[in-house]
Amino acid sequence: MEKQNNLLYGVAYYFEYLPYDRIDEDIKMMLAANINVVRIGESTWSTYEPEDGVFDFSKLIYTLEKMQQAGIAVIVGTPTYAFPAWLAKKYPEVLVENDGQRQLYGRRQIMDITSPVFRAYAERIIRRMLSEVIHFDNIIGYQVDNETKHYGTSAAHVQAAFIQKMKVTFDGDLAALNQAFGLDYWSNRINSWEDFPSVNGTINASLAGAFSKFQRELVTDYLSWQVDIVNDYKKANQFVTHNFDFEWRDYSYGIQPDVNHFSAAQALDVAGVDVYHPSQKQLTGVENSFVGDVARNLKQQNYLVLETQAQAFKSWTPYPGQLYQLAFNHIANGANMVEYWHWHSIHNSFETYWKGLLSHDFQPNPVYNEAKQVGQDFKRLSDKLVNLKHDATVAIVVDNESLTTTSDDRWMEFGVGDHVKYNDVFRRIYDSFYRQNIRTDILNPQTIALDQYALVVVPMLYVSDRSFLQRLNDYIHEGGHVLFTFKDGVADEHVKVRTALQPAIIQEAVGAHYQLFVDPNGEKLRDVSGVFQDSDLVISDWSELLVTDTATSLANYDDHWAQYAAITENHYGAGMAWYLGTWASASVIDQLIKHVVKNSNVAPSPYGVAWPLIVKSAENHEHAHIDFLFNFSDQTQQITLPFDGVELLHQENINSNQQWELAPWSVKILERRDK
Amino acid sequence: MEKQNNLLYGVAYYFEYLPYDRIDEDIKMMLAANINVVRIGESTWSTYEPEDGVFDFSKLIYTLEKMQQAGIAVIVGTPTYAFPAWLAKKYPEVLVENDGQRQLYGRRQIMDITSPVFRAYAERIIRRMLSEVIHFDNIIGYQVDNETKHYGTSAAHVQAAFIQKMKVTFDGDLAALNQAFGLDYWSNRINSWEDFPSVNGTINASLAGAFSKFQRELVTDYLSWQVDIVNDYKKANQFVTHNFDFEWRDYSYGIQPDVNHFSAAQALDVAGVDVYHPSQKQLTGVENSFVGDVARNLKQQNYLVLETQAQAFKSWTPYPGQLYQLAFNHIANGANMVEYWHWHSIHNSFETYWKGLLSHDFQPNPVYNEAKQVGQDFKRLSDKLVNLKHDATVAIVVDNESLTTTSDDRWMEFGVGDHVKYNDVFRRIYDSFYRQNIRTDILNPQTIALDQYALVVVPMLYVSDRSFLQRLNDYIHEGGHVLFTFKDGVADEHVKVRTALQPAIIQEAVGAHYQLFVDPNGEKLRDVSGVFQDSDLVISDWSELLVTDTATSLANYDDHWAQYAAITENHYGAGMAWYLGTWASASVIDQLIKHVVKNSNVAPSPYGVAWPLIVKSAENHEHAHIDFLFNFSDQTQQITLPFDGVELLHQENINSNQQWELAPWSVKILERRDK
Amino acid sequence: MEKQNNLLYGVAYYFEYLPYDRIDEDIKMMLAANINVVRIGESTWSTYEPEDGVFDFSKLIYTLEKMQQAGIAVIVGTPTYAFPAWLAKKYPEVLVENDGQRQLYGRRQIMDITSPVFRAYAERIIRRMLSEVIHFDNIIGYQVDNETKHYGTSAAHVQAAFIQKMKVTFDGDLAALNQAFGLDYWSNRINSWEDFPSVNGTINASLAGAFSKFQRELVTDYLSWQVDIVNDYKKANQFVTHNFDFEWRDYSYGIQPDVNHFSAAQALDVAGVDVYHPSQKQLTGVENSFVGDVARNLKQQNYLVLETQAQAFKSWTPYPGQLYQLAFNHIANGANMVEYWHWHSIHNSFETYWKGLLSHDFQPNPVYNEAKQVGQDFKRLSDKLVNLKHDATVAIVVDNESLTTTSDDRWMEFGVGDHVKYNDVFRRIYDSFYRQNIRTDILNPQTIALDQYALVVVPMLYVSDRSFLQRLNDYIHEGGHVLFTFKDGVADEHVKVRTALQPAIIQEAVGAHYQLFVDPNGEKLRDVSGVFQDSDLVISDWSELLVTDTATSLANYDDHWAQYAAITENHYGAGMAWYLGTWASASVIDQLIKHVVKNSNVAPSPYGVAWPLIVKSAENHEHAHIDFLFNFSDQTQQITLPFDGVELLHQENINSNQQWELAPWSVKILERRDK
Repeated sequence: MEKQNNLLYGVAYYFEYLPYDRIDEDIKMMLAANINVVRIGESTWSTYEPEDGVFDFSKLIYTLEKMQQAGIAVIVGTPTYAFPAWLAKKYPEVLVENDGQRQLYGRRQIMDITSPVFRAYAERIIRRMLSEVIHFDNIIGYQVDNETKHYGTSAAHVQAAFIQKMKVTFDGDLAALNQAFGLDYWSNRINSWEDFPSVNGTINASLAGAFSKFQRELVTDYLSWQVDIVNDYKKANQFVTHNFDFEWRDYSYGIQPDVNHFSAAQALDVAGVDVYHPSQKQLTGVENSFVGDVARNLKQQNYLVLETQAQAFKSWTPYPGQLYQLAFNHIANGANMVEYWHWHSIHNSFETYWKGLLSHDFQPNPVYNEAKQVGQDFKRLSDKLVNLKHDATVAIVVDNESLTTTSDDRWMEFGVGDHVKYNDVFRRIYDSFYRQNIRTDILNPQTIALDQYALVVVPMLYVSDRSFLQRLNDYIHEGGHVLFTFKDGVADEHVKVRTALQPAIIQEAVGAHYQLFVDPNGEKLRDVSGVFQDSDLVISDWSELLVTDTATSLANYDDHWAQYAAITENHYGAGMAWYLGTWASASVIDQLIKHVVKNSNVAPSPYGVAWPLIVKSAENHEHAHIDFLFNFSDQTQQITLPFDGVELLHQENINSNQQWELAPWSVKILERRDK
Repeated sequence: MEKQNNLLYGVAYYFEYLPYDRIDEDIKMMLAANINVVRIGESTWSTYEPEDGVFDFSKLIYTLEKMQQAGIAVIVGTPTYAFPAWLAKKYPEVLVENDGQRQLYGRRQIMDITSPVFRAYAERIIRRMLSEVIHFDNIIGYQVDNETKHYGTSAAHVQAAFIQKMKVTFDGDLAALNQAFGLDYWSNRINSWEDFPSVNGTINASLAGAFSKFQRELVTDYLSWQVDIVNDYKKANQFVTHNFDFEWRDYSYGIQPDVNHFSAAQALDVAGVDVYHPSQKQLTGVENSFVGDVARNLKQQNYLVLETQAQAFKSWTPYPGQLYQLAFNHIANGANMVEYWHWHSIHNSFETYWKGLLSHDFQPNPVYNEAKQVGQDFKRLSDKLVNLKHDATVAIVVDNESLTTTSDDRWMEFGVGDHVKYNDVFRRIYDSFYRQNIRTDILNPQTIALDQYALVVVPMLYVSDRSFLQRLNDYIHEGGHVLFTFKDGVADEHVKVRTALQPAIIQEAVGAHYQLFVDPNGEKLRDVSGVFQDSDLVISDWSELLVTDTATSLANYDDHWAQYAAITENHYGAGMAWYLGTWASASVIDQLIKHVVKNSNVAPSPYGVAWPLIVKSAENHEHAHIDFLFNFSDQTQQITLPFDGVELLHQENINSNQQWELAPWSVKILERRDK
Repeated sequence: MEKQNNLLYGVAYYFEYLPYDRIDEDIKMMLAANINVVRIGESTWSTYEPEDGVFDFSKLIYTLEKMQQAGIAVIVGTPTYAFPAWLAKKYPEVLVENDGQRQLYGRRQIMDITSPVFRAYAERIIRRMLSEVIHFDNIIGYQVDNETKHYGTSAAHVQAAFIQKMKVTFDGDLAALNQAFGLDYWSNRINSWEDFPSVNGTINASLAGAFSKFQRELVTDYLSWQVDIVNDYKKANQFVTHNFDFEWRDYSYGIQPDVNHFSAAQALDVAGVDVYHPSQKQLTGVENSFVGDVARNLKQQNYLVLETQAQAFKSWTPYPGQLYQLAFNHIANGANMVEYWHWHSIHNSFETYWKGLLSHDFQPNPVYNEAKQVGQDFKRLSDKLVNLKHDATVAIVVDNESLTTTSDDRWMEFGVGDHVKYNDVFRRIYDSFYRQNIRTDILNPQTIALDQYALVVVPMLYVSDRSFLQRLNDYIHEGGHVLFTFKDGVADEHVKVRTALQPAIIQEAVGAHYQLFVDPNGEKLRDVSGVFQDSDLVISDWSELLVTDTATSLANYDDHWAQYAAITENHYGAGMAWYLGTWASASVIDQLIKHVVKNSNVAPSPYGVAWPLIVKSAENHEHAHIDFLFNFSDQTQQITLPFDGVELLHQENINSNQQWELAPWSVKILERRDK
């Protein structure tokens, strides 16, 4: 695949959904907005294969021809994430069975991705589709499937495959499995492979954890299988991508529990993501940021925003300025493409009110008009802003196994509290770095190169093998800095709690241990180090009663547990380790991270500002430093410039120490002169 | 059917439920209360047909004989809304299947009203029952079934019938159906009638809307089928009615989603309804009023209150005075009968604490004693108060399709907000007219004669065909007045959003349009016309960003959307149109309706009072004007009388300008002298 | 069975769950803590019978041997409350079917206790297990099953057995059943035994009540069946017990709905219970107390605490002092054993964070260290504190039928209110006695000997036969005192509401009646007797409008129901009856109970203190009076001693009128000198 050499600005375009053929008019309006790419094809299998074995790609080809004529690039999606009614009628087994029930036909993403029948039909439509379109020069890449997950697939044949995997994992030794998973408990011991029960009813967190991991591997397998098919057709200058999404809490909230993004991305040429976020008064920019910090690290290169919101919902319709600033914000985070979902609002069905750039009326409107401004400036600045390089000195380690084990409602006690899940912990810590304008990379234990970072943050790594914990100890010993949190190191890779004093293994570097943990039940922190100036040292839900060995306490508990430390600091070898033993307020975490950063060789932002002023710095292919400044607030903000340079959006020369004003919901881009 | 010539006052009476035969004692107590009608028979099929084909109507006949001897009229209900255990055992398919599950035997209203088996057995019991009772002269009418709905019936044969209907609707043209419903979306396209999937899993709002409408038609069909059977037996002076109920939110809240009352009433001779409402401090009278405003318009004549509460629940036990005032309130709304559910509280089973006039002890009690007072005054004033005529100049247009489409949890975005459904909108508008003592008729697009009204209100008519919207435009052009609201005109009769600027089609009369809509997210209205004096201009959940064409704005939004209008007024031809573009507080709606009424040739109430003082005026068969005055509050209220006349309850002469006192929870009835 | 002659102090011990064999180390730590008993074996069937018919009791025997060597007594549990995967695979019918669904394999307590297959396999494993262990001298007793309930069992064969029971109950007379249950209602009449429908869908509270009672009888039958098997093996000096648990609301909250403890205990030698309770700031001691007041009365002797918490959950980790005081608190309530669940925290599966005395690290920790102190003092004081006798003069009558009928969500109107269930009423009354240091016995109508008590309290006895109500009348007439509450006497044993004025039958002793009841809807009480001094006379949810006959009102309602009494007092024969007609605040109930106690020959506590100072007095086998004093608060408390004596924990001589200090969360034990 060739390196992309311009910014892509686009929309998802569904010719098939239009109430009438207005493609010429649409293309005219796209060109007026400098839209240079559309994503098509990913959800209309029933249009392309109206009957079993009968194909009609006329609408797809018509769209491709029109786009080609207009000079608009195309990303073609395989159409497999929604399938035709006739397929469900003929082979009900293509409908996923989860929670013991076969799903009803209707929704998308209800296929059994392991079904041989589904795979056979999916392969045929993909191959037929690619054969038909492969000659179009304006196709720049392919997207396999869309927002793929495992959909809880757990029918009998999936259980059988899981048992097969367990046989391999434990080398056929059931006693070892019983021991590793603790199956004697409540008479769950399995004494022959034939007796292996469905895990649907299991109360064993180790077994459930293994199954959850297996389900994620099914996703990786499925996507890599699709990529292999597409690779049979695609040309050298075309890419294959996938549209990864994130834990959904009515918007992109956190790490995806049902897919291991790091594994699944291996088969791809370039990573794609969708990002949806609160808007209007609730816009902070943080979702774009954390999604980008993951996405950049999936392939160690720039990524594509395959979907983000235009108008979307009534509570997301952007205030004037927000659509514009967010487009550049994606670029600042490392994206090379910004693509809206979608061009036109749909007139029927389900997502009628997930609105596109155009309302149902297809007329220009304020949001479309703002997109035109984006398109114009993207085009003008493309060469300066494409393929930006980012250099984070802080890494955050995330982990699917820890996420799903501690977030499972079946054993809520494994987590922090009823309303505090893994992603809440991840986000409170992430958000603090974000607010303080400290760039982070997000990786997992399998992908992180520890020594590339000045500071590594390991939130709630409940499940981990011994070797990674040992690697962290070694990294610190050699001069690294790590911020650990509660629940790090607790259980081994089989979700078996370790018998060592906690935090297990890393206790060595942390220099403190605990045996008891409590709900603080209204108690607070007590500063014992001067680090925490705030009078409001609120904690809740989870407190490990730390006893310091070589560490010093930064904060203790008050009242009943006053003798115990809550947050500790330790010098270990040439490095330092901090341990946060309690679910602390955002304010406590801000103060802790300030302290940790100050002691960790992490360079602070030269702009000295914090949210709602967000600064994102990068280097472009000309080795110029580019600083993006965002005002995510309703108030005009002042900023003193530390550099000379040029403001790119308005082509204005800037001197250092100059006062800049950022209007509400706006962006400025500084190209530093001192490159 | 002969015209009814006296007020009916009655109870539902279940001889079959009595713990012992006390009918003579019951009748003695009924006569003491001037109860002149009982409703019997509608839920005891298993008593009348203890085994398949074995009949025993002895209890029914015994009751009829006793009532005849006592001179008490009877309404006999067909016993089909609950069926015997043996029928369910023999033919499980009589149990309705909804949400993919056959219901368990036990509850009432769990039959499949389309089942041929159920229909055959129902027909047999009805015919046998009517043959047995038809000679009783004291039967004044029959009730078919009870509170019939479709119960979500959706088994395979119902789906098949629906497909058949779709074939007819679209003339066999699947492409037209795919186009109308937008089925290309998410690969839902149906390319052969054989592939038509069950709609149980559908995510297509058009398909779901069509199915919901089809289910309502099944109710109409079922009731008309029962009426046909009863018509084979009933005499010329007997009527057939049905007991319609309303959207249930622990009481009668709004328009019924599962039945098209206007269609279903066509087969009947007279409309019957049940009304249940909050009581004690929470009694407002509004439920009686809106139910009456629907019921009067079902057959364009007076209606029967077949059920309303006596003691009912612990939170409904009436304060002294409430039972009395409510009986006359029903008459004031257009009822010719008030019938309590029910005579005696039931000692077993389910509705044990839905208490009747009598407690479980069968002794006289305060509520029964108040009913005696009602009975005495009903009897005395029957000739003055029967067959009252009501003359509303305001009509409210309601619509089942709009209701179900915008209230469906599967696509909440089609509605106003999570906690604001169609009936909330209907009620907030209705309640404002009610509080201001402006009488309304409630009709649907198929039944309304626009030119009979000075003002037509069209709340949230999301689904509508072009012709009705055009009729509204024409009506305004010819001098009519219409108050439109948000979401009017959005989608066509197939729930496809129109591609015109919104509000589609009526934009012409409204003189304003919008492309964007937002959640106000804390923002308020800003008065720009002097119409809204209130400082508290609260809105929430839904705001269309209106751009005026020929209209003038009455109120704009503040802050981020300050340039857009929220409420507009337009002169169009000889008439006027108002458009309410946002979900506004009751206070805003009160002020808007005051303004609209003032500009619409709607005569204000001559009493100049508002809730908790409620005035209902009517004309009796002697052409006398009768004004009912109600105090729905705990405080004594003053009222200045605009007319000379006679207070009928106390036979007191009254002069205009006299000050009247209304005790808490009381009623007075003025017969004007100036008739 | 011989009388137990020392205090037992123990833990549940699961050798099978250990990650490695550390039994010698465990025993060493147990002995260091003076632990003298362990409970083993009750949940590891799959370890003992790895394949159908293949047995391996090596781990069980190994544990027994080690305990024997250490001189530690053992209670062996039958392993039937969790069963092997192979059994579920082979015979799916052993999985209970409830709510129409067969449960999935995984959890414990999902067997069909009526399944002949399950019974056969259970009998075999029990007999094999007992044969293997019966020669161990250190076995002091057996526990049959664990926390057995009926698990909602309601498959077809259970329904058939229920019908069979109904035939017997009604002597084959269906008409009598129809009449008793009121089945004519909604056509539910059953006209032949063959038509009897499954009760799964019933809406008839009488039928549901009968089925619920039948399900409880299945539990009694199942436990007695297991006891019979164990009795074939056990020696004369061994006991059989069962571990009864209580209504679970995240802790032991109230009377168990699914088991009739009084019936089920008949087959046992000694009653065992588990008690779990809030801790830390939320510790009050009340759960230990009410569980003890039930448990003592199951066999009219001391009982065993088979399970209570050590560390358990993060919100239960005891403050320093709490574990110690609670151990003596169980003894003060009548227990002869305190056994923690469990020794070591489990490293896998489900209850990983229901922690034991030891954390996952197996090291001594603060909680274990406190348990060592308990063990030492238990050992030293065993002879003084074992087999304590308790003498309550107040009895509270509880009833399963009333509980389940009024707590059923299907007919919430039968109860007090949505958030006020039977056990809330029981607890608010119980807690008041507890706070006032008045010892109570808890019994049911079948087991209570009324004349042994000065005062009998009958909360919410909604379901009762005539004879018990008559017995209460007679008891009062002969000089007894009874505090009745709302809903007493309402329905007969078939859950048919009585046709008498309410409260039915006891109206005679109560001297007041009501016909209406209301939700107070914000209204309060009004004192009319001087009994209620508090200005805050709050009531909610339920108010019976009482009319006094011979009674006098202690409090009336205010406002709309001001003429009615809410709380009455009546002299009847030589005794007195009080009637609480409304759901009153804890403060009202405290005042009422003070008044009732003062008028009922109930001796007040000689210490004159109230919660958080709790006093429990008893007599030991040397006829010494032992007073336990507990401080359940964070504050040091003062107490003036009414007696001379010796404080046993510190062997300190005490003079009456001396001021004692009780440290926060502490206990002192006084042996009075005046025995």
